[in-house]
Amino acid sequence: MKPVREEIRAEESLNRVTAEAVYAKYCSPLFNAAAMDGIAVVSERTKGASEAEPMTLRPGEDFVVVDTGDPIRNPYDAVIMAEDLMEQEDGSVRITQAAASWQHVRPIGEDIVAGEMLIPSKHRIRPIDIGVLLAGGITRVEVFKLPTVAIFPTGTEIIEPGQEPEEGDIIESNSRMFEAMVRENGGVPHRFAPIADDYEKLKNSIAEAAKTYDMVIVNAGSSAGTEDFTVHILRELGEVYIHGVAIKPGKPVILAKVNGKPVIGLPGYPVSAYINFENFVIPVLRKMNGETGTAVPVVDAVISRRLVSSLKHREYVRVKVGRVDGKVVASPLARGAGAAMSLVRADGFCVIPQSSEGVEAGEPVKVELYRTMEEIDHTVVAIGSHDLILDVISDLMPDLYPGNYLSSTHVGSMGGLMALRRGEAHLAPTHLLDEETGVYNVSYLKRLFPSPWLW
Amino acid sequence: MKPVREEIRAEESLNRVTAEAVYAKYCSPLFNAAAMDGIAVVSERTKGASEAEPMTLRPGEDFVVVDTGDPIRNPYDAVIMAEDLMEQEDGSVRITQAAASWQHVRPIGEDIVAGEMLIPSKHRIRPIDIGVLLAGGITRVEVFKLPTVAIFPTGTEIIEPGQEPEEGDIIESNSRMFEAMVRENGGVPHRFAPIADDYEKLKNSIAEAAKTYDMVIVNAGSSAGTEDFTVHILRELGEVYIHGVAIKPGKPVILAKVNGKPVIGLPGYPVSAYINFENFVIPVLRKMNGETGTAVPVVDAVISRRLVSSLKHREYVRVKVGRVDGKVVASPLARGAGAAMSLVRADGFCVIPQSSEGVEAGEPVKVELYRTMEEIDHTVVAIGSHDLILDVISDLMPDLYPGNYLSSTHVGSMGGLMALRRGEAHLAPTHLLDEETGVYNVSYLKRLFPSPWLW
Repeated sequence: MKPVREEIRAEESLNRVTAEAVYAKYCSPLFNAAAMDGIAVVSERTKGASEAEPMTLRPGEDFVVVDTGDPIRNPYDAVIMAEDLMEQEDGSVRITQAAASWQHVRPIGEDIVAGEMLIPSKHRIRPIDIGVLLAGGITRVEVFKLPTVAIFPTGTEIIEPGQEPEEGDIIESNSRMFEAMVRENGGVPHRFAPIADDYEKLKNSIAEAAKTYDMVIVNAGSSAGTEDFTVHILRELGEVYIHGVAIKPGKPVILAKVNGKPVIGLPGYPVSAYINFENFVIPVLRKMNGETGTAVPVVDAVISRRLVSSLKHREYVRVKVGRVDGKVVASPLARGAGAAMSLVRADGFCVIPQSSEGVEAGEPVKVELYRTMEEIDHTVVAIGSHDLILDVISDLMPDLYPGNYLSSTHVGSMGGLMALRRGEAHLAPTHLLDEETGVYNVSYLKRLFPSPWLW
Repeated sequence: MKPVREEIRAEESLNRVTAEAVYAKYCSPLFNAAAMDGIAVVSERTKGASEAEPMTLRPGEDFVVVDTGDPIRNPYDAVIMAEDLMEQEDGSVRITQAAASWQHVRPIGEDIVAGEMLIPSKHRIRPIDIGVLLAGGITRVEVFKLPTVAIFPTGTEIIEPGQEPEEGDIIESNSRMFEAMVRENGGVPHRFAPIADDYEKLKNSIAEAAKTYDMVIVNAGSSAGTEDFTVHILRELGEVYIHGVAIKPGKPVILAKVNGKPVIGLPGYPVSAYINFENFVIPVLRKMNGETGTAVPVVDAVISRRLVSSLKHREYVRVKVGRVDGKVVASPLARGAGAAMSLVRADGFCVIPQSSEGVEAGEPVKVELYRTMEEIDHTVVAIGSHDLILDVISDLMPDLYPGNYLSSTHVGSMGGLMALRRGEAHLAPTHLLDEETGVYNVSYLKRLFPSPWLW
């Protein structure tokens, strides 16, 4: 798991992580250079020039014409801008002001001094870094090798996307999500074709991959069902460190080592797979990548409704996040391990520690955020009934109001009105029929939002 | 400049931007499915089972064995977990509790309902989105085409990186920085070999590129020097809208259109080039990409020293940013257009509007941030003399204290002590010799930080 280094061309190093600090080979500028278009002069010799007594300078003798970036050679030590010259017909120029020594000259090494540290180690290379590396004479840079990751989808019930599914078939999508997650975290994924539940075939495939790749991911087959023999294979091939963790969703994870390589078994439910990937695969990838530290920002929020959790596990509750009346509100979404759409809709996770039995509505929570607070501050929060028009409005927002968003959470009409009353939503779509009067909504609003001047 | 659409495979759509909302083709799950390993039963028939009166169920007749994900077919409507079964020798099982109708069954469409919007338009596709697209039966997705960008470095004085420079040579690095910036903003760069200052050759190259590429960038040759004929070429080939803007650094920019394509001339100084790229190229790339809104977060800070600016232009001052004693402090770095290293070291830009003549030390400013506040809150701010040991410590920080950083700004020993006194630095490297006593620092500290118990 120690990061491996490789040397690559500086111009191809975008987003790679430096294995060591990089020091400049050359100065920049490499020589005293003109900072303006004009003429190079000897400042000493211009003394005395004034509006009243202009001085005439002769080409070759008193000055040379320079463009920005041209070298300023001995004995010249200053540049007079083209705008400040009066050109004469004979090629000479007149000046009305003396030049200060080193005016409009960029001295050698002004930007970069040879031997100076250009970028530190463990640094993700940005476009500007590529610029200074090359300007400082560095053409190759030592970075951490991108770890290669083999991904094995398994199971007899799975079919490839695009095939017409029959009852009992499950479209294989997790491995494609993993591929993308590996890429996002600086790895190179290789997704293999699905392997049916065949003990020998899976065993050989894993053994082979553990020779070639830096990490192996086996998807599904990590729970305790009849066909779930991944853990047995891994015990046979290497060492299994952990089988099952106290995280929900995400319990059935396998952490093993085969041929010195980490092999990670992930569960089949998409949300469990995603959360386990975040908790167990990404830290390893980042380590292999040479990157340390974590990046997910955490914000303080209040939870919009009661959440009960068990002491048996740490729970990851997907939430929508919005700012209403100055406070940051987290609204829980569906909690099932199969509810992939709740992940698509989420702005982050509210993590309930194993030691907690839950939180009451309005209580403070920590939220691991997947959007910027900037975006969240520009989001209209709708909580209530699921009106499809909200999806359409949300879709139109980027065109109509660039930089603004609509977030809608579906908890039913009454739940929405309650959230509105608690100051946790900007608007609440509602369609509650009063069966006595046959009129929608009004009687409910009168009751929940009593007002002497509205009703 | 209208974004162009293309259809690509869903599994290759990471980070692409949707041209339209995508709706599910299939439900997920596709059928009522077991949520647990166990047996499928008819809940009605298990009524009455209890600890006191266990009930025996016979295979085929009363139940079928199911694994998680298996279809639950008529007449079965519930699953009893394997853990709750007492298996008998004859293959029958005994249960001690009745099954509730639909217990441990994921109903068809629980996660995704066919016809439901999976992801909106103008949405940057994430790994989880790829998962739900495939699970919802979508294998191809309509996204905006990545704009192609031709990049022309120009000038007789430039040499390619890796060549041994002689006096007067400038190592060409801007075009490689542009390549990386184009990639980061969702474009496909094509960098051409440098073109010497040859009017006809450059003209033909730009005319040709404007036929094939979505955008053309010409580097250097946008100021008013003798060899700067880019603007003349562009007037000949198409229409020049703007030549020069009131931005510092960054004044000499050319915005033109040739053959309906944007052609942008950028100045040669790296900082000017970078700021102009940010202001004039990125918005166009994002537009072509289908993305709207801006992303750079802005924070309120106080400036650590006086900044004088001219009413002639809007000025972009590079700053280091840190949090000291609860307040966010921005420390200005070198301001020259050639100071590329100041960009490498910067945490963001403090933008001084054209209408302002500057700000006094301690006054509030807005800072466009290039790092997260999370990182800034974990940064030790050193202001003062440039001690190389600080570079080394900064380099070691990720290993020694992951997630923590050291930022050092060099304003001289006395400047550092003043910043410390104003509460704008955590530490100030200093080496001030008291010539009277021959002792470093102490007399200065006694004067600047009078304290009855320290001295």
